[in-house]
Amino acid sequence: MASVDLNCDCGEGFGSYRIGDDAAMLEIVTSVNVACGFHAGDPEIMAKIFAAASARGIAIGAHPGFADLWGFGRRRMPCTAGEIERLVAYQIGAASALATYAGARLGHVKIHGSLGNMAAEDDVIAQPIARAIKAVDQGLVLLVPAATKLETAGLAQGLTLAREIFADRGYMDSGLLVERSCPGAVLQDAEEAANRALAMVLEGAIVTTTGKRLKTRIDSVCVHGDSPNAVAMARVVRARLEQAGIALAPFRPI
Amino acid sequence: MASVDLNCDCGEGFGSYRIGDDAAMLEIVTSVNVACGFHAGDPEIMAKIFAAASARGIAIGAHPGFADLWGFGRRRMPCTAGEIERLVAYQIGAASALATYAGARLGHVKIHGSLGNMAAEDDVIAQPIARAIKAVDQGLVLLVPAATKLETAGLAQGLTLAREIFADRGYMDSGLLVERSCPGAVLQDAEEAANRALAMVLEGAIVTTTGKRLKTRIDSVCVHGDSPNAVAMARVVRARLEQAGIALAPFRPI
Amino acid sequence: MASVDLNCDCGEGFGSYRIGDDAAMLEIVTSVNVACGFHAGDPEIMAKIFAAASARGIAIGAHPGFADLWGFGRRRMPCTAGEIERLVAYQIGAASALATYAGARLGHVKIHGSLGNMAAEDDVIAQPIARAIKAVDQGLVLLVPAATKLETAGLAQGLTLAREIFADRGYMDSGLLVERSCPGAVLQDAEEAANRALAMVLEGAIVTTTGKRLKTRIDSVCVHGDSPNAVAMARVVRARLEQAGIALAPFRPI
Amino acid sequence: MASVDLNCDCGEGFGSYRIGDDAAMLEIVTSVNVACGFHAGDPEIMAKIFAAASARGIAIGAHPGFADLWGFGRRRMPCTAGEIERLVAYQIGAASALATYAGARLGHVKIHGSLGNMAAEDDVIAQPIARAIKAVDQGLVLLVPAATKLETAGLAQGLTLAREIFADRGYMDSGLLVERSCPGAVLQDAEEAANRALAMVLEGAIVTTTGKRLKTRIDSVCVHGDSPNAVAMARVVRARLEQAGIALAPFRPI
Repeated sequence: MASVDLNCDCGEGFGSYRIGDDAAMLEIVTSVNVACGFHAGDPEIMAKIFAAASARGIAIGAHPGFADLWGFGRRRMPCTAGEIERLVAYQIGAASALATYAGARLGHVKIHGSLGNMAAEDDVIAQPIARAIKAVDQGLVLLVPAATKLETAGLAQGLTLAREIFADRGYMDSGLLVERSCPGAVLQDAEEAANRALAMVLEGAIVTTTGKRLKTRIDSVCVHGDSPNAVAMARVVRARLEQAGIALAPFRPI
Repeated sequence: MASVDLNCDCGEGFGSYRIGDDAAMLEIVTSVNVACGFHAGDPEIMAKIFAAASARGIAIGAHPGFADLWGFGRRRMPCTAGEIERLVAYQIGAASALATYAGARLGHVKIHGSLGNMAAEDDVIAQPIARAIKAVDQGLVLLVPAATKLETAGLAQGLTLAREIFADRGYMDSGLLVERSCPGAVLQDAEEAANRALAMVLEGAIVTTTGKRLKTRIDSVCVHGDSPNAVAMARVVRARLEQAGIALAPFRPI
Repeated sequence: MASVDLNCDCGEGFGSYRIGDDAAMLEIVTSVNVACGFHAGDPEIMAKIFAAASARGIAIGAHPGFADLWGFGRRRMPCTAGEIERLVAYQIGAASALATYAGARLGHVKIHGSLGNMAAEDDVIAQPIARAIKAVDQGLVLLVPAATKLETAGLAQGLTLAREIFADRGYMDSGLLVERSCPGAVLQDAEEAANRALAMVLEGAIVTTTGKRLKTRIDSVCVHGDSPNAVAMARVVRARLEQAGIALAPFRPI
Repeated sequence: MASVDLNCDCGEGFGSYRIGDDAAMLEIVTSVNVACGFHAGDPEIMAKIFAAASARGIAIGAHPGFADLWGFGRRRMPCTAGEIERLVAYQIGAASALATYAGARLGHVKIHGSLGNMAAEDDVIAQPIARAIKAVDQGLVLLVPAATKLETAGLAQGLTLAREIFADRGYMDSGLLVERSCPGAVLQDAEEAANRALAMVLEGAIVTTTGKRLKTRIDSVCVHGDSPNAVAMARVVRARLEQAGIALAPFRPI
């Protein structure tokens, strides 16, 4: 493994609100997924992050989610397949235009929160997402949780994929994430998260809570930006990968 | 004058709400301006209108407005020039993606409501609008109220312009519209509106409430879709233009 | 049966949007349930309906729903019991203040859309609703679908109840409504709806799609205001009840 | 002067968002003004603050603002007098119900942000606010910026008033606040703010940036909760008042 990408969600504020320390995270990661105004984000913060990330050589992506600002996109909303297609298409378009406005170029799409979790688990949600991206811009990379239904759906549409693992989330033997409400859902210890992330990248496998290995290609490691110790953990994960001789670089040419 | 365009605003519903009879208006006009989700509109209705309009050979455009659903974009909101650039860029991007998704191609931009009125009157508002369009997609036509500051701003940015006059709105001698709260703001009589629109197109001039003529190129006649007798008036305007031997056709190739 | 109440939902517009013909419905019904700004409604329309209804001797109630304007409160949203308590409390308070402002007095609460359907089916949803009303104002009448979990929950909290049947909705043998997506969900024929409503009131029973009778007290008949033939159907239902010698009057003193 | 109140704005989060450290401020102040869901706040955070404040013997009030979450209520919005009456009435009702739900009792109203600034300057805005409070609940205290048009309007309606001065805002000789965009608008130094607040309370006068004294009754000192050093400054202000022998207590019995 010559290099791997390090991605995080960014621009999750709204108006006067902020979540996470975007400026600090931009010093650490190589790709960012930017909220598009439905579960978080607004035109101001989007343009600002696109410009700042691009100036640092960081790859930029759209991070569409449910139209649910109050729930921060973390509630599972009833939606038809058609509605999913159109809410994804809308948000990609808005992000793409603001990236262009900011002198940058949108390169990928990652799905946020509950919509992302539902897409990982269920073809009926995953397929309209892949269809929407294909319809709007086939050149966009779809950044998917490795070894999930969304990967399958992306492949079926012929999209270019990047596969990510999460540095700080527990995995079930199914390859899906442990629910946030369950024990072991989130790794609090930065060293433990960094060591596990390194192991997954070196082995080319998801490591589950029972120690099982699920072989998969891994293009990117996701670190979170919105927990209290997010910045510190991201730094440790990056340092551990670099110490092991793995270069950090965007998963796509920017 | 071989031909003129007939445009109306469309897709001004939201969720379960509807304003105007979009289906009827699509039988009459040659261009539509589609609300983009800020003052009205949502991904569902946008995609639906784009598909239906495109199938009929109607030119489609984005109709950005203030982020003010409650006020329907008709309240003058405090905004910096930068904020205007980014809210216009965002909405154009969303509309463009949904047009592409619907198998169509976004061709123009028209500014809605108070933002449009402010842009007609004031360079400080008009210029960021023109800059945003240039930054996002120089190929888009800017549909402007003829003989206004927005026309000037569009020219200064080198944008392709289309100039419209309003069939049912009274004009002051300055070339600006009579305020909605004033007498003579809206022509209620379809025959009167149709005759005046025809006169303006034939003379190449805005006809003001005092009878003054303001010479201008006219590429399009705007009919409204959201008043009680909107559909009937639009039919009369179209018929009058056709009877005078003026062909109705989109102001740009689609 | 000396008298029965006739209720409908009202004030379901938002900003420039309108649904249904409120003015016409106020000529027909004896109670109205007014949207509170979450799934529909805003301070302007609430105050206007409260004043107009009160001036006609019509009983006024709050009609809380999910915070989902886009979905008009008709999507089932994930919610904890505590969140339900607080969204109901908030909306009752807002409605009560605007009723007082309008010179009227809020007398009852009816639950809207999906939240209402969920409460009819499920104690876990019904109980927090009843608790919220008790906590905020025990004097409010809870208008419930007859023979449902919400009736049970209201009784358990010692609330004063009014029980309604729907003039135009099909009933399953369980006493629950036929889902809107199923055949027989909505009676389109005004005569049929009126005859069935009269039969239910006279027999003191819900009449199901199989002809089964479910005995229940009936204090109110609900007519809808938001379908194309809503006003016509409401008039027929009212006339049929009056022809049978049943007086129409609010279910509570106003 | 036996005692003075120390108030701050609270509950200015929304969904997953938070502004300021509410828990820390509740250890310092004697009254809180709670956002009501229009410019900030939601039913969850409102109920939580009402319960926590009430448990500590802190007086609770509603803090209505413009319906402008994106602008945090800090943009001057076009509004009619009637609209102001109804948006204030709505928010007071919602807050009152959630206070009752939380086992507390709403005691006062303070106006937020731009609506508050406009009311301080202009009778046309101040009067509908006072009328709305009188119409909804005459027992509520109106907490006003001392020596402003809102004080006059409250007196004219016969409302009980409490007059506040701001610990950290510069005053013009007119008694109005220095605009946030101007130098001297905000005092950054805690010692300076505390000394000036103490001087104002002891002298019974507003101290302006030119050193002028404007005599006024002062019932409360407002400290802000949303700046980076807000908690530290509030502690210094409180300590300075106590050191001078001035007791801190709510301006009204709770």
